[in-house]
Amino acid sequence: MTKSNPGNYFEDFKPGMELVHATPLTLTTGDISLYRALTGDRHALYSAATFAVSNGFDQLPIDPLLAFHAVFGKTVPDISLNAVANLGYADGKFLKTVNPGDTLTAISDVIGVKENSNGKTGVVWVRTRGENQHGEIVLSYVRWVMVNKKNASNPAPEAVIPDLPKVVAAEDLVAPAYKTWDPALAGSNWRFGDYEVGEKIDHVDGMTVEEAEHQTATRLYQNTAKVHFDAHAQKDSRFGKRLIYGGVVISIARSLSFNGLESAAQMLAINAGTHAGPLFAGDTIYAWSEVLDTAELNETTGALRLRLVAAKNHPCSDFPLRGEDGKYHPDVLLDFDYWVAIPK
Amino acid sequence: MTKSNPGNYFEDFKPGMELVHATPLTLTTGDISLYRALTGDRHALYSAATFAVSNGFDQLPIDPLLAFHAVFGKTVPDISLNAVANLGYADGKFLKTVNPGDTLTAISDVIGVKENSNGKTGVVWVRTRGENQHGEIVLSYVRWVMVNKKNASNPAPEAVIPDLPKVVAAEDLVAPAYKTWDPALAGSNWRFGDYEVGEKIDHVDGMTVEEAEHQTATRLYQNTAKVHFDAHAQKDSRFGKRLIYGGVVISIARSLSFNGLESAAQMLAINAGTHAGPLFAGDTIYAWSEVLDTAELNETTGALRLRLVAAKNHPCSDFPLRGEDGKYHPDVLLDFDYWVAIPK
Amino acid sequence: MTKSNPGNYFEDFKPGMELVHATPLTLTTGDISLYRALTGDRHALYSAATFAVSNGFDQLPIDPLLAFHAVFGKTVPDISLNAVANLGYADGKFLKTVNPGDTLTAISDVIGVKENSNGKTGVVWVRTRGENQHGEIVLSYVRWVMVNKKNASNPAPEAVIPDLPKVVAAEDLVAPAYKTWDPALAGSNWRFGDYEVGEKIDHVDGMTVEEAEHQTATRLYQNTAKVHFDAHAQKDSRFGKRLIYGGVVISIARSLSFNGLESAAQMLAINAGTHAGPLFAGDTIYAWSEVLDTAELNETTGALRLRLVAAKNHPCSDFPLRGEDGKYHPDVLLDFDYWVAIPK
Repeated sequence: MTKSNPGNYFEDFKPGMELVHATPLTLTTGDISLYRALTGDRHALYSAATFAVSNGFDQLPIDPLLAFHAVFGKTVPDISLNAVANLGYADGKFLKTVNPGDTLTAISDVIGVKENSNGKTGVVWVRTRGENQHGEIVLSYVRWVMVNKKNASNPAPEAVIPDLPKVVAAEDLVAPAYKTWDPALAGSNWRFGDYEVGEKIDHVDGMTVEEAEHQTATRLYQNTAKVHFDAHAQKDSRFGKRLIYGGVVISIARSLSFNGLESAAQMLAINAGTHAGPLFAGDTIYAWSEVLDTAELNETTGALRLRLVAAKNHPCSDFPLRGEDGKYHPDVLLDFDYWVAIPK
Repeated sequence: MTKSNPGNYFEDFKPGMELVHATPLTLTTGDISLYRALTGDRHALYSAATFAVSNGFDQLPIDPLLAFHAVFGKTVPDISLNAVANLGYADGKFLKTVNPGDTLTAISDVIGVKENSNGKTGVVWVRTRGENQHGEIVLSYVRWVMVNKKNASNPAPEAVIPDLPKVVAAEDLVAPAYKTWDPALAGSNWRFGDYEVGEKIDHVDGMTVEEAEHQTATRLYQNTAKVHFDAHAQKDSRFGKRLIYGGVVISIARSLSFNGLESAAQMLAINAGTHAGPLFAGDTIYAWSEVLDTAELNETTGALRLRLVAAKNHPCSDFPLRGEDGKYHPDVLLDFDYWVAIPK
Repeated sequence: MTKSNPGNYFEDFKPGMELVHATPLTLTTGDISLYRALTGDRHALYSAATFAVSNGFDQLPIDPLLAFHAVFGKTVPDISLNAVANLGYADGKFLKTVNPGDTLTAISDVIGVKENSNGKTGVVWVRTRGENQHGEIVLSYVRWVMVNKKNASNPAPEAVIPDLPKVVAAEDLVAPAYKTWDPALAGSNWRFGDYEVGEKIDHVDGMTVEEAEHQTATRLYQNTAKVHFDAHAQKDSRFGKRLIYGGVVISIARSLSFNGLESAAQMLAINAGTHAGPLFAGDTIYAWSEVLDTAELNETTGALRLRLVAAKNHPCSDFPLRGEDGKYHPDVLLDFDYWVAIPK
């Protein structure tokens, strides 16, 4: 009997199950440096302790997306080792600041299952939370994945489909209250009131991703999905090569979005996210954003609901998204809907 | 007269010589993050401060292999700059926990020399120790290398061949006493009693190594051996390209071995090690393990003596090791024999 | 109206202008580890807290070149986004130790402008300083760049050409006073008195640079110049590929210079610097140094004025620099003139 982890199959997931994922992770300033070096992030709030402290933080905090990837990574061996596709995200909330030295543990509740009509696969919904060393939930999100059945002849379970919000309600955002946002240090004079619903921003810059870079980032998050690391096995796969972890695309697109959204530093919620196409090493990521909504949070701070679109080898001055058939443009990698705080 | 380091030749090594190696190194949480990002390590003991502290450590410790590579790296300019081959390791012991902030200095004693019959090379044995800032020995090991003679006409020294143990005795292991090993967080329910001598475990996953990755890891350890870094010079070498540092293979194979040996986190001793074949960028490492022996350490903790085998571009469900001729299978990279602690 | 940063054009720079650059950066031990892993640096003063403290530092300090690159990186979006070429450096001084946890802000004063005769470009001189969280200047340097005009028909400004020293005067160096420099730990017995003006040192070793490595280093410094990152856009550029940031060349050449200049650890000033040729991924950097001058600093410490030359795919035993026509040898990448402290 083998001791290696075979992962879970569709039949293994039962609504109500709780999965405590292996390997809690202590995030440190070492991770902050690596995250910056691998994504190019430049938001002052996550670069400068002085800037963070003068805006109400205790110290230089961990970027919410770094915490998200770390929590996500831990779920892979239990949730998506036998996954066919990562279908979507919903109701992601960043609830508490993660600081260097904090240890995150990932725990998932199975909240839905539905077998596909082919009888070979099914969709599993999980709500995953990251807890710090005090047992406080620092972030929480739902994702759903298509998972292989162990045996097609096994009977289909009763379908349970969770009711998920399309958007995190603005009143559910954990609102920071910025005190002394310095526009020169942040990199822009644009503030909350300068952004209008419907406005589109081309982030101009492009970032090419190498094998060594995405592998290093994905290991940093302790995400072990084989498709990202095993070139030998991938030779016989659908794409014939390693596939880049979607979280690498999210973080690089977010970092590129600094150019035009400099003060929109702090992600508050993930409303939805679709990995529309695969990214491979050697491809160049470009990005654009659209303001989908705005919300007042408090006296000093507002929130923008943004659509962040990443495209490969396709500069985004034409804002690629979907074709006339409603399908994603073939160059589009990511369609990501999130709330971000911005000073008034 | 040149000021650059020409390295030592066979004639320069005299039994009884002590070599204090250059550049002590302070290891920090930055090194912990990089080690994880470059190897994919997921052992909870070296990932989570909470897990480490609840098992008797003062804080998140440095992985013993990271400390080993750092000490090893320092010996290269003095020991193996003119080496033809790294022949083996023996009697490696991890004696004291290395914590972030500790500074390691490497010191070697020459304990053996033997000229080869060709008169052009000889074998040098050194015992190397790593000391922390308090002068405490944190690790110690013997390695032997084949080194070029400066001048073949120089007379052969009297041969001194050290008597080395085939295996570190179990009673010489510095035994941890785990207190609250949480199987869910560690990633497995398998404990000391679940592993049997003779059992083989295929670790399943593969990891492809890129030039940028092995170079970055090898520089992290301040290992300067030219063969790893100088593609221009290597064009005219035996392999025609850069050779990956064997320590990169050891660490990636160990990280892959998480899958099936999740709770075997803490390396206690290196009994032996052979780099059976060269690894090059673009190759994929797979690994399997065999339980060679077991030992009771104390009430809460035992030790497994494991053979860790790494192979390139060769998934290990057939446990490759040697052919019928007794020679290593051509795909085998590493045959590594070590003791590791595991909770009862 | 776009919110992305169009950068400044020649017409935007007015002598007397002050530019506060975006994104102050807190440097940590994470950056120290990454800098070592990306450059191969081995100077004991920046590797070992024990060595640094025993020589008068409070803790393991940040390498002056890492601080320099971080400050430089911040200036790119404002100074050189539309630059045609980085023409030179002068009067660079390292004034105060940067420690882990310090936050650096970059501020530039425009000190000169001169339109070129073609009417399409001009030269801009800026003095840039890096300030820590206490408002103390930790480093300061002048650089000049050729920048595109927005509109060739705009009139030329009055030329202002700053008067710059060819060399930082030895009495302006902030002199460390080493206390207990241990030659074995530093890696060499060579001290101040062993180096003679005119002496040339071949640093022997070579280091090949990969795309993933220079991109990771350049993002670590938050340098966003497009030419380093966007392979898709660079396909249509002059070189057809990504160009490696000149600071990567400086740091790798400095790290290679350890071999022969082991105790010349602490850079005190940058007198001049020319990026003589472009470096691309896959190229191998070699380096040599020449002692241009020496200066007594105090009882324990002297300074060497060194020329550091880097060449690509060209081992430096022949000390390549210029041809008979006075032009740089085509393999030369860097001609860098600096002061460095060294124990007596």
